[in-house]
Amino acid sequence: MTRKLKSDMAWSTADRIMVRGHDLAEDLLGKVSLGDIAFLELKGRLPSKQESTVFNAITVTLVEHGMTPSAIAARLTYFGAPESLQGAVAAGLLGIGDRFGGSAEDAARMLQEGLTEAGPQADLAALAKQIVSSHQESKRVIAGLGHPVHKRVDPRTVKLFALAAENGLSGRYVELMQLVGQEASRSFGRELPVNATGAIGAIASELEIPWRVCRGLAVMARAIGLVAHIQEEMDEPLAAEIWARIEEESSSHNRPSTD
Amino acid sequence: MTRKLKSDMAWSTADRIMVRGHDLAEDLLGKVSLGDIAFLELKGRLPSKQESTVFNAITVTLVEHGMTPSAIAARLTYFGAPESLQGAVAAGLLGIGDRFGGSAEDAARMLQEGLTEAGPQADLAALAKQIVSSHQESKRVIAGLGHPVHKRVDPRTVKLFALAAENGLSGRYVELMQLVGQEASRSFGRELPVNATGAIGAIASELEIPWRVCRGLAVMARAIGLVAHIQEEMDEPLAAEIWARIEEESSSHNRPSTD
Amino acid sequence: MTRKLKSDMAWSTADRIMVRGHDLAEDLLGKVSLGDIAFLELKGRLPSKQESTVFNAITVTLVEHGMTPSAIAARLTYFGAPESLQGAVAAGLLGIGDRFGGSAEDAARMLQEGLTEAGPQADLAALAKQIVSSHQESKRVIAGLGHPVHKRVDPRTVKLFALAAENGLSGRYVELMQLVGQEASRSFGRELPVNATGAIGAIASELEIPWRVCRGLAVMARAIGLVAHIQEEMDEPLAAEIWARIEEESSSHNRPSTD
Amino acid sequence: MTRKLKSDMAWSTADRIMVRGHDLAEDLLGKVSLGDIAFLELKGRLPSKQESTVFNAITVTLVEHGMTPSAIAARLTYFGAPESLQGAVAAGLLGIGDRFGGSAEDAARMLQEGLTEAGPQADLAALAKQIVSSHQESKRVIAGLGHPVHKRVDPRTVKLFALAAENGLSGRYVELMQLVGQEASRSFGRELPVNATGAIGAIASELEIPWRVCRGLAVMARAIGLVAHIQEEMDEPLAAEIWARIEEESSSHNRPSTD
Repeated sequence: MTRKLKSDMAWSTADRIMVRGHDLAEDLLGKVSLGDIAFLELKGRLPSKQESTVFNAITVTLVEHGMTPSAIAARLTYFGAPESLQGAVAAGLLGIGDRFGGSAEDAARMLQEGLTEAGPQADLAALAKQIVSSHQESKRVIAGLGHPVHKRVDPRTVKLFALAAENGLSGRYVELMQLVGQEASRSFGRELPVNATGAIGAIASELEIPWRVCRGLAVMARAIGLVAHIQEEMDEPLAAEIWARIEEESSSHNRPSTD
Repeated sequence: MTRKLKSDMAWSTADRIMVRGHDLAEDLLGKVSLGDIAFLELKGRLPSKQESTVFNAITVTLVEHGMTPSAIAARLTYFGAPESLQGAVAAGLLGIGDRFGGSAEDAARMLQEGLTEAGPQADLAALAKQIVSSHQESKRVIAGLGHPVHKRVDPRTVKLFALAAENGLSGRYVELMQLVGQEASRSFGRELPVNATGAIGAIASELEIPWRVCRGLAVMARAIGLVAHIQEEMDEPLAAEIWARIEEESSSHNRPSTD
Repeated sequence: MTRKLKSDMAWSTADRIMVRGHDLAEDLLGKVSLGDIAFLELKGRLPSKQESTVFNAITVTLVEHGMTPSAIAARLTYFGAPESLQGAVAAGLLGIGDRFGGSAEDAARMLQEGLTEAGPQADLAALAKQIVSSHQESKRVIAGLGHPVHKRVDPRTVKLFALAAENGLSGRYVELMQLVGQEASRSFGRELPVNATGAIGAIASELEIPWRVCRGLAVMARAIGLVAHIQEEMDEPLAAEIWARIEEESSSHNRPSTD
Repeated sequence: MTRKLKSDMAWSTADRIMVRGHDLAEDLLGKVSLGDIAFLELKGRLPSKQESTVFNAITVTLVEHGMTPSAIAARLTYFGAPESLQGAVAAGLLGIGDRFGGSAEDAARMLQEGLTEAGPQADLAALAKQIVSSHQESKRVIAGLGHPVHKRVDPRTVKLFALAAENGLSGRYVELMQLVGQEASRSFGRELPVNATGAIGAIASELEIPWRVCRGLAVMARAIGLVAHIQEEMDEPLAAEIWARIEEESSSHNRPSTD
């Protein structure tokens, strides 16, 4: 009746620790970087030099976005629970959902499902047109396009796509993403360049990372950034000031005037 | 009355994104690995080649420990909330507290406070004796020593200390940690070798990472491992089986027999 | 350019605290129960005696479901981070997502959107038929029906619907939910009685609680249950045993045999 | 070798659900309020009428404190992850740590450990003096005293202590807490009235709730308040405005001026 529990992530004996089939102390420590271990964890094998460069680049892009809602939430949480750094980081990660991490996931899904359905011989330009028009009809936003600050071009996209090309990892997913951006700009009559999450969704697809896991790339990378935000908060705390201002302003219309 | 809010983590304009003072697209992407960005985030500068090797090694050690309570919690959470991968990772990270992540933090604290109080001329052997006896008197466990599986020697410690030495990063913190291990083994009359968290606490101290942030090293690294566990759970789910067994067994003494 | 921040949840002065427009010390403490405050928080007014009975009943239903994935995750988290009871409860709540809390939300949404679109004169039997057939066609599960253990009838549903009727709160939402259950049983050719989450979704709709908040009823109620599970875990810990068993079994196929 | 897993929280069969030994549908729904179920969950028995009044009062006190760091964090999290209301509530609860929920816990611990060590015949005035002076010597803050807004008297304390007295639940814990407040005011030469968390810690002790669980009272109550804050945020969102202001101000010193 019961099903055997099985996992292949890691195991150990008295004298060694195996991670994804590799001896941690003998074969990984001192030889393999944190980013490459992340690749190993997700793919079950170490990356080639080219894959390493590109995979590290997309995760590096996701580490630090400054004073985001997620970073602010982490700092406010640390203020209330300084005993639990892990709780502050967890609170921050909880905001990497549909609006933020979901964007790379949605782009990857659009590309992966699009190319799977269209098949290996698909005409990418036609497929891009079809993707844009189906989004237009159902009034859905196309993931991975446009940016409120980097309106004309997202400098991260340019660099990430260049790195993918230099390393032989710019294939049909990247091409389709770029065509979707061009087609959308035409159809909507305004610049809709591929943004960083669009580039990441496309390149993760080239690396054969399933779209369901793509938001996880943002989650793992942002965990690093959030630890660093907590460290800055320890040294120069902002939470009390943020709290005081927001509480005062948001309740002032209810509070009796004091004169 | 109000205090100016200030952060130096990142900022951006229409055409560039700066992370810790570096141009992300120009100077970091394709040039700097994820582990080195973690170093940059925490230290405000990029690592030397030696620092990079050693810092990557200590974080790599923390990524994947197999089917820990934290990984099981993440999988159970994903089962209930498959819409929120970030929630499953957050749930897993919440278990990286005093018992797990806290151990590297406690070791680093013991070393950093010990050496600060004793001063630059301190006799390390005498300091180690004093640390062990004060823990013995107050019946506190000494962080960073002993392991239920790696009883005689922790293979990660051997490798991490060797890497620190090869890279010129084995100084007084590492020496003190080793002396504490030797002294404790003598005093308690059983083998208490420095374990992986003791080695990490010591080496993080060599890298001048404040002890308060050391549990964050475990948190950021484990986020990577937890994303990979969720991916395995997507492909070969264990949560339903774990739930069924535990629920059945834990309530069977209350349930009326059915014959 | 900036928008004024405004909230009406609570405010205070040196000598009083106002919660949702009521003086906490004068008008609420000793007079109003926890469940009624939950109603006040969500609805902006205190409940009538009838509303109180019914609202307390639906939230009470959601407090304690035994050794769920959520409860197990909370206990495993507490094991790793005993300094942070709040972290263990948060980990448990993170599993109250689409699969568990989402079910009451989905039922409420189906009823609220169904009745809004159909209008006040709608023929409920026809609407139920339409709801069931549209789910059948698109192969979606109908929320709020069927239960793996309470196969024939869910005793909570019987009681909750009886309480709603006795208290004048059984209107068109409850009727529609029941009709959907009958129609689905007919269409699918097997018993699909309204389960507890279906009843809660329907009654919450009678209380004019928006469907988007319905999963929040499960979240707030389960927080109570999770604190109690942590208390039991403090007294009779299960986490270490659960961990040991799962780790051993799930990695045994990889571990070299020891004879 | 293995230990039997056992829990007494709940169990069910095809036709009934038992919660802490009570038949949920028959004996609890419609008869027992949410607050009384919380008492049942923690104590294993239903409260008397007096206990119910007092227990509901202390939990009601903890539900809603306005725009706290915890509420702001929950709103910011919801902004990033609107698919996961549970994640937003969890993020908010993670801030109910040492600084907030910990305060009732610390007060209860001080009282429970103080009275246990001093024994049933203890002179409470002498014990209060000893508690205050030991805190003074070790420069530790005394939990449960003083308030930045309710400086002279905390209106919640007055009411909670009155309710405890009226209901026969004002014993040696409440007396000791009050004596500690008087003694501290004398010793420190300024008004240090018992605040709400001091009153809650004392009354929870009268109800024989272990101090380790007292922060859980805040966690369960605040979960209710946080769901209501998310509901307000759905209707009148503040998160985007808060984010925009904080990001702009905190990075303006780094950003090049635009003229």
